[in-house]
Amino acid sequence: MKSYDEIVAHTQKIADINGAMAVLSWDKETYLPAEGAALRARQMATLSAIGHQKMTDENYFNGIMSLLQDQALNEEQQINLIRLKRDIEQQTKFSTDFVEKMSLAVSEGYHAWAEARHKSDYTIYEQKLDRLIQLKKEAAEILGYENHPYNALIDQYEYGMTVDILDNVFNQVKNDLVPIIQNLVVQEQPDTSFLEAYFNEDKQWKFGLDVLRDIGYNFQAGRQDKSAHPFSISMGSAADVRVTTRVDEHNYAYMLWSTIHEGGHALYEQGLPTEEYGMPLGQAASLSIHESQSRLWENHVGRSLQFWQYYLPKLKMVFPREFQNIDVNTFYRAINKIAPNLIRTEADELHYHLHVLIRYEIEKAIVTDEIKTKDIPTVWNELYKKYLNIDVSRDADGVLQDVHWAFGSIGYFPTYSLGSFYAAQFYHQAKRDIDSLDEKIAKGEFKPLLQWLRTNVHIHGRRYQSEELCQKITGEPLNLSYFINYIERKFLSL
Amino acid sequence: MKSYDEIVAHTQKIADINGAMAVLSWDKETYLPAEGAALRARQMATLSAIGHQKMTDENYFNGIMSLLQDQALNEEQQINLIRLKRDIEQQTKFSTDFVEKMSLAVSEGYHAWAEARHKSDYTIYEQKLDRLIQLKKEAAEILGYENHPYNALIDQYEYGMTVDILDNVFNQVKNDLVPIIQNLVVQEQPDTSFLEAYFNEDKQWKFGLDVLRDIGYNFQAGRQDKSAHPFSISMGSAADVRVTTRVDEHNYAYMLWSTIHEGGHALYEQGLPTEEYGMPLGQAASLSIHESQSRLWENHVGRSLQFWQYYLPKLKMVFPREFQNIDVNTFYRAINKIAPNLIRTEADELHYHLHVLIRYEIEKAIVTDEIKTKDIPTVWNELYKKYLNIDVSRDADGVLQDVHWAFGSIGYFPTYSLGSFYAAQFYHQAKRDIDSLDEKIAKGEFKPLLQWLRTNVHIHGRRYQSEELCQKITGEPLNLSYFINYIERKFLSL
Repeated sequence: MKSYDEIVAHTQKIADINGAMAVLSWDKETYLPAEGAALRARQMATLSAIGHQKMTDENYFNGIMSLLQDQALNEEQQINLIRLKRDIEQQTKFSTDFVEKMSLAVSEGYHAWAEARHKSDYTIYEQKLDRLIQLKKEAAEILGYENHPYNALIDQYEYGMTVDILDNVFNQVKNDLVPIIQNLVVQEQPDTSFLEAYFNEDKQWKFGLDVLRDIGYNFQAGRQDKSAHPFSISMGSAADVRVTTRVDEHNYAYMLWSTIHEGGHALYEQGLPTEEYGMPLGQAASLSIHESQSRLWENHVGRSLQFWQYYLPKLKMVFPREFQNIDVNTFYRAINKIAPNLIRTEADELHYHLHVLIRYEIEKAIVTDEIKTKDIPTVWNELYKKYLNIDVSRDADGVLQDVHWAFGSIGYFPTYSLGSFYAAQFYHQAKRDIDSLDEKIAKGEFKPLLQWLRTNVHIHGRRYQSEELCQKITGEPLNLSYFINYIERKFLSL
Repeated sequence: MKSYDEIVAHTQKIADINGAMAVLSWDKETYLPAEGAALRARQMATLSAIGHQKMTDENYFNGIMSLLQDQALNEEQQINLIRLKRDIEQQTKFSTDFVEKMSLAVSEGYHAWAEARHKSDYTIYEQKLDRLIQLKKEAAEILGYENHPYNALIDQYEYGMTVDILDNVFNQVKNDLVPIIQNLVVQEQPDTSFLEAYFNEDKQWKFGLDVLRDIGYNFQAGRQDKSAHPFSISMGSAADVRVTTRVDEHNYAYMLWSTIHEGGHALYEQGLPTEEYGMPLGQAASLSIHESQSRLWENHVGRSLQFWQYYLPKLKMVFPREFQNIDVNTFYRAINKIAPNLIRTEADELHYHLHVLIRYEIEKAIVTDEIKTKDIPTVWNELYKKYLNIDVSRDADGVLQDVHWAFGSIGYFPTYSLGSFYAAQFYHQAKRDIDSLDEKIAKGEFKPLLQWLRTNVHIHGRRYQSEELCQKITGEPLNLSYFINYIERKFLSL
């Protein structure tokens, strides 16, 4: 492979394979019949191996390296090749032997975790988790790092992110956010019982589709289906980006905000440049920037007073009896209720980051042996008492609640919080750039915001790392003050 | 690749890729968003090329050849390797240059056909069709044949089938079937208007699912969805075999029998041995045997008096008003109405074979230049007058109705009729082997029939060619008398 075009053609074939895997994965979560699970697993393993083989093809890497020395490349071509070079290096750093050991540890870890969670018995999982932690420490050494082994692990999920930046972020969570939350939870809580009436599934579903369409999701290049856990997935380009949701007929809050959240992810993917199909400039910047898009739509838009000034009258037409006596302020207060709970995925907009903080502190400490594997539950429970002031009665609702570590994902959790914090900073900038954004949202005009996100975030693909993109959009790196200010304004006025 | 196990492993990887393509294909026909079409086309082309590459890998072929000389193989292993050897030879006979020419001709042919059909103007298509015909003649020479070039083409769809056998079959269609039909169509026709009332889509759908479940379709290893044209598709093993249908609220007949037809195909795939995953013994025997399964369930079971003795009371519970005055004999006569029409896919159980006969006569003649491409419409229309006694007013309803030739499929049509004729012969045997089969069906007991098909047809995979299988099951090769006797008994008693 000697020309840029040949590199593109090869890269796009890899994208075809990854896109096919995305379809198989989407089908697995939506429509796959029960007995098809093992067949699907082998189909995906085979495609994954073929993709890996193409990605680590020596001719491909050598072609990229020699093109990178070529001065005739334009800026976009250079960026694409630099990003590809790193992607390939990440995939080739580990020996086949190591990859197989990790794969086995993940498989055993996952099964042990599932059983341990089911029986709420950490001891079933402890040994397998320890094996995974030892391998991740080994991985950090193979990958290489400066200062802290955790840097190597975060870097895999969030290129360029470091313990230094995260320590700074989570210190502010501790110093500024924790007191705000402690102040909020002792105040009188709004009544939320009206959100737990009976809400017909089909009506909820239709309303969710309307909201998705309104915020700009293109149903000609996507669709919504049902799955056990909501997700969004791109089949490889903006031409086919799908979302799923789950409807709970006894909890109105469940479906709509997860729909908006996944819609935010999908709007990002639908805004990526199709002319860069398969190339880094056609891909999302990072996990945290992805999460910034979902959180921005879910929280800054979907949980705002303006949004419900527009939608509550519409919602009342769908569920007249259920919401007849509810005014928009009552509704707004109810959907922004703050209360500590044990489960991260059920946390409110503020407590969520305390869940992540706890995981961040534990992850950092386990890769340096400051916490031993057998002691994780004890530390976990202590931290939940310290930060959320709640007791963990059983490990199933504590250390065993997340699958991430069992999948060998250590260093992933911080990207969730980073996403929220970037969202606050971006949204602050959007309000400065877009004339009367609040008023527009109160009128159901979402196009200016989507257009702003398209121009400032989506269109760039992977041109910038997260922090570079943040600098470019807002003129400064990640600054938690925007998030703190946002929640102070929002929650102290409630 | 030196061991049988290595050959199996490689073959199963090819099956994984083909299965992934089946999922992509299923999704394309059911849920793919409109803008995703081009992306999907490239994903499928990439997977297809990878599959072809693995199939034509020299080490693979050489491994098979050297193993075939090994006396230590058991019978199953030998059959698998002999079939694989032929499959590979079929894929490697054509040069890359020829494959590309054919691929281009198909692409251009398809687009010309679509436009020609839309405008009902054969001249738009003529030149492209002629190119396809010339290439198919070239293909016949490359493949090699005895006696007739059409033999080489049929052989690709129906291994072992020849013009000699087909001439014999279609001569009986002309000599025996045509007079029967001519006699039937002049008789008084039953009233079918009650089948064209309004039938709620959801109720039709649910009834269809019930029938599928009753005849033995396993919904744990499959599912039914909606698509523009009904089809059944295996994702590579009995673990995941899906069907689709289309519901017409103003034509009760449309949905149910296409559901049973596709269900028959799916029951075959669900009955293939999973321990032979990816190998020939785990695959369906041939197109005609596949069609025998769908036709057997659709016509011999689904259009029988016994079937409706069981189901009409159930159908009346779903559509009480629509069927209240209809007794089982009236219903039975209506669903078996015989009338000529122009469109093959809308033909009744008898006329269908006249549509195929016409295509067969034309196909045989075009590959030997007895009919020139420009004269096909004239011949087509003459044959419709001759055999069906109807006039073709526009080519869209005549020679342009089928996509097959535009796809380069010449020699495919006969497998449809062969399927029906095998079905009649198999069903005759099943009635001899199964005690009181009619009575069982009248009680909704389908298990004995399905078990008989499992044991006699499904379980063998590709162990036998169509004619060998027919011989094994019925003690003689294809014999049209069974079909003729069946229709005489059925239609003369109506």
